[in-house]
Amino acid sequence: MNGAESLLQTLVNCGVEVCFSNPGTSEMHFVAAVDRQEGMRSILGLFEGVVTGAADGYARMTGKPACTLLHLGPGLANGLANLHNARRAGVPIVNVVGDHATYHRELDAPLTSDIEGFAKPVSGWIRHTHDAEKVAADGAAAVAAALTPPGQIATLILAADSAWNPAQAAAPAPERQAPGAPDPQAIQYTIEALTSGEPCALLLNHGGTTEAALRLAGAIAARTGAKLLGDTFLTRIPRGAGRVDVERVPYFGEQAVEVLAPFKHLILVATKAPVSFFAYPGKPSELTPEHCQTHALVRAEADVLQALEAVAEGVGARGVDVPVCERETYDLPAGELNPASVAQTLACLMPDNAIVMNEAATSGFAIPGLTRCAAPHDWLDLTGGAIGQGLPAATGAAVACPDRKVLALEGDGSAMYTLQSLWTQAREGLDVTNVIFANRKYAILQVELMRVGAENPGRKAMDMLDLSRPDLDWVSLAKGMGVPADRATTAEEFNQQLARALAHEGPNLIEVVL
Amino acid sequence: MNGAESLLQTLVNCGVEVCFSNPGTSEMHFVAAVDRQEGMRSILGLFEGVVTGAADGYARMTGKPACTLLHLGPGLANGLANLHNARRAGVPIVNVVGDHATYHRELDAPLTSDIEGFAKPVSGWIRHTHDAEKVAADGAAAVAAALTPPGQIATLILAADSAWNPAQAAAPAPERQAPGAPDPQAIQYTIEALTSGEPCALLLNHGGTTEAALRLAGAIAARTGAKLLGDTFLTRIPRGAGRVDVERVPYFGEQAVEVLAPFKHLILVATKAPVSFFAYPGKPSELTPEHCQTHALVRAEADVLQALEAVAEGVGARGVDVPVCERETYDLPAGELNPASVAQTLACLMPDNAIVMNEAATSGFAIPGLTRCAAPHDWLDLTGGAIGQGLPAATGAAVACPDRKVLALEGDGSAMYTLQSLWTQAREGLDVTNVIFANRKYAILQVELMRVGAENPGRKAMDMLDLSRPDLDWVSLAKGMGVPADRATTAEEFNQQLARALAHEGPNLIEVVL
Repeated sequence: MNGAESLLQTLVNCGVEVCFSNPGTSEMHFVAAVDRQEGMRSILGLFEGVVTGAADGYARMTGKPACTLLHLGPGLANGLANLHNARRAGVPIVNVVGDHATYHRELDAPLTSDIEGFAKPVSGWIRHTHDAEKVAADGAAAVAAALTPPGQIATLILAADSAWNPAQAAAPAPERQAPGAPDPQAIQYTIEALTSGEPCALLLNHGGTTEAALRLAGAIAARTGAKLLGDTFLTRIPRGAGRVDVERVPYFGEQAVEVLAPFKHLILVATKAPVSFFAYPGKPSELTPEHCQTHALVRAEADVLQALEAVAEGVGARGVDVPVCERETYDLPAGELNPASVAQTLACLMPDNAIVMNEAATSGFAIPGLTRCAAPHDWLDLTGGAIGQGLPAATGAAVACPDRKVLALEGDGSAMYTLQSLWTQAREGLDVTNVIFANRKYAILQVELMRVGAENPGRKAMDMLDLSRPDLDWVSLAKGMGVPADRATTAEEFNQQLARALAHEGPNLIEVVL
Repeated sequence: MNGAESLLQTLVNCGVEVCFSNPGTSEMHFVAAVDRQEGMRSILGLFEGVVTGAADGYARMTGKPACTLLHLGPGLANGLANLHNARRAGVPIVNVVGDHATYHRELDAPLTSDIEGFAKPVSGWIRHTHDAEKVAADGAAAVAAALTPPGQIATLILAADSAWNPAQAAAPAPERQAPGAPDPQAIQYTIEALTSGEPCALLLNHGGTTEAALRLAGAIAARTGAKLLGDTFLTRIPRGAGRVDVERVPYFGEQAVEVLAPFKHLILVATKAPVSFFAYPGKPSELTPEHCQTHALVRAEADVLQALEAVAEGVGARGVDVPVCERETYDLPAGELNPASVAQTLACLMPDNAIVMNEAATSGFAIPGLTRCAAPHDWLDLTGGAIGQGLPAATGAAVACPDRKVLALEGDGSAMYTLQSLWTQAREGLDVTNVIFANRKYAILQVELMRVGAENPGRKAMDMLDLSRPDLDWVSLAKGMGVPADRATTAEEFNQQLARALAHEGPNLIEVVL
């Protein structure tokens, strides 16, 4: 057994079953070990942003880490933006990053770089392994670190010689760290606020938006009259018919301030006080109204369910009937194809138990509202603002849940970042319907340019925010990667194409021309 | 005038004329300033790896920096791999990375990250600007840092409030730092080695492969019998008819050892002693033979021409006739399309003064040999081993040299990394012919898997190194981004398609099916 084999066996012992990979020469012993290892599926991405984003989507749907296999510093670097998103999502990922053999590093060969330096801004745990005998223990420690609640990025840097030198044995799965107990005082303050008679809202994310947490939050809201709010961008939330309804804090600060204005108490459940996504001259960054007190009920790292149970108990919400969304039926839209008509078609045709990955930016604003009472589904957001997460995360979600339909709702600008995902969807036969909103611009930035006070922008500025000349042809791009595709220019065409796409298994793409 | 405007005017004052950009909200004041600034061309890339790789290609062809415009930490992160390559190339680049407004950073909004942490492994100079009044001086310092010989990556992190707050004025261009004087003792040792009667080789890169340096090196070689060698991967070298011939140190260590075996003295000109690209079990990483002494004549940071002039003087090579490659004529190949036939077609059809960006890996091995005596051209290599440099660098080279034909020779695996480059080529009407060697695998890795000792690999291992199922269709991918494309399956088809491509202006792509 060599170091790589001891690592692979250890990862499998720890419950890691999927390796999203883009290897190079320094990872060849790991590749050979994957080849021989039962219980480890390997999935190739043709760019590392696909690899790390897929690991994020997989973790959101399974609650457990996949491993990534990345080639040295630059391979890791290409995956950093989606690791940033995954860090914000609070999900577990184990990165295995190959490094030169220990004695080779000091020679400063062309691919040598400061791998720890690249890893540090996104990783909750980093270890550089130089000794084959320690690889197994380090691998188990990486999985344990990744599973530290709520989940974090663990990066194991594996020197090539520690992969090829002999090793004794694999390590067993470590004990999983339980989330910390919630703070009883915070529970007490929360109960007092909720029973004060003053207007309260619960703001939820991470472990606060699981189905179990939402039922408790829904009961608390029903009992006390508190409002349920979700962060603008959520790691994962069950939505639709039969689910507890949660209103989102809007993206634009002015609107967020309006939504938050009525409340005297904002209770934070596994999240932080809301701040605007960006700063704007003369506008506030902190969105909680001055007259409103924030109460941190429970951090994402602690036991969220236990905290909500204690609060439910304290406010007398046990056994309360929890109101949920009732299924609505919608008519298929006709005529002009626009973001609202697409949202309506989605509300009509979304199958039961779909997974929706939303990275549609401005084109997606209408979708949450219109799908509130559609078929029950899970919804995933772009958590860290680094575009290029949607197609990869949808890919990983489809690997995690092969029996569910996955819908990737994508802006054309975001989709271009990691379009290589389509090839992985094709190779693995993943059941993903990719809806590309082709407005042929970074529309959000055209809005933001005005919002920061740049008036009468000229051609040079607008060209930096515009994806036309030439127009991207998504049908050809998808075909180039083996994914069948259609282009919709009317609501009727989109209705028909989406129905057909959802009726078939396997990946497909619809370009929605706006 | 605001901070962004003072920075733009400063950059123009310093001779920066091109901004390769992919902005976000935090860079909107910079976008607005570009809009109003005469003398600054803005070129959009639909992914940051395109942006940074284009800045590299531009710098290689002009010797001066472009600036990049990148959105916060994740935008920079997406450009890091090509900044790693540019760092290895020793070229000047000024990154302008937007950051949140100073007071907004501490709120840890979703896109907040450790931007300096991301920048550090690739940057020779980093400054975080928080004060609009200092932006101009910091911008001038960034350009000066980028131009520190031989060239380096300067990263200026621009807080949004330092862009939008009022500023006094732009800064003038700083004095350009001259390269350090070469070490007289190193010159003396070199002269002694070259006149010792023992076999010598000069190993060249960076400033050692300019046309002027090569003529001096060629004279020294002609006078002393020394051999001229180039690093395996060169920042830029003039080649072809009329140019001094330089043999490359081969990529595979075993072959490199053979090439280096005859020499008792290896004289390093703006480079380091050769090491293998990767470590392999039981194989040496250092390639210089034991019986060979290495002499560092001059470092890349110092005055390479002055050192070579002194050596030429010392060995009596002034006025010596310098042998150069004589133009050869080749016959167009017929029949099977393979890497050798493609190389022969290129040797036949390459126009005078072309720029060749080579990232063809295994498919490109035959091209340098066969184009030795083709029309004179400049040749650029993948310097840092981080694939995905070729299409972006070709894009930047075409921006730098609009009157020259650019040929991007690309492996399909490498090309997929930053295929978004094709869109920028289309938008800007750049005269780039992209030749994609579609062998549908990471062929180099299949070789390396054997070389590291993994025998009889199974399906799972081979799938991690294979780009088939589905095959990439490069004609469709190019069409999707507005670039006309052909597919060649015979030598005759490729002859005809390449001739047609070179006869027209503007971008095009040929998929060479191997």
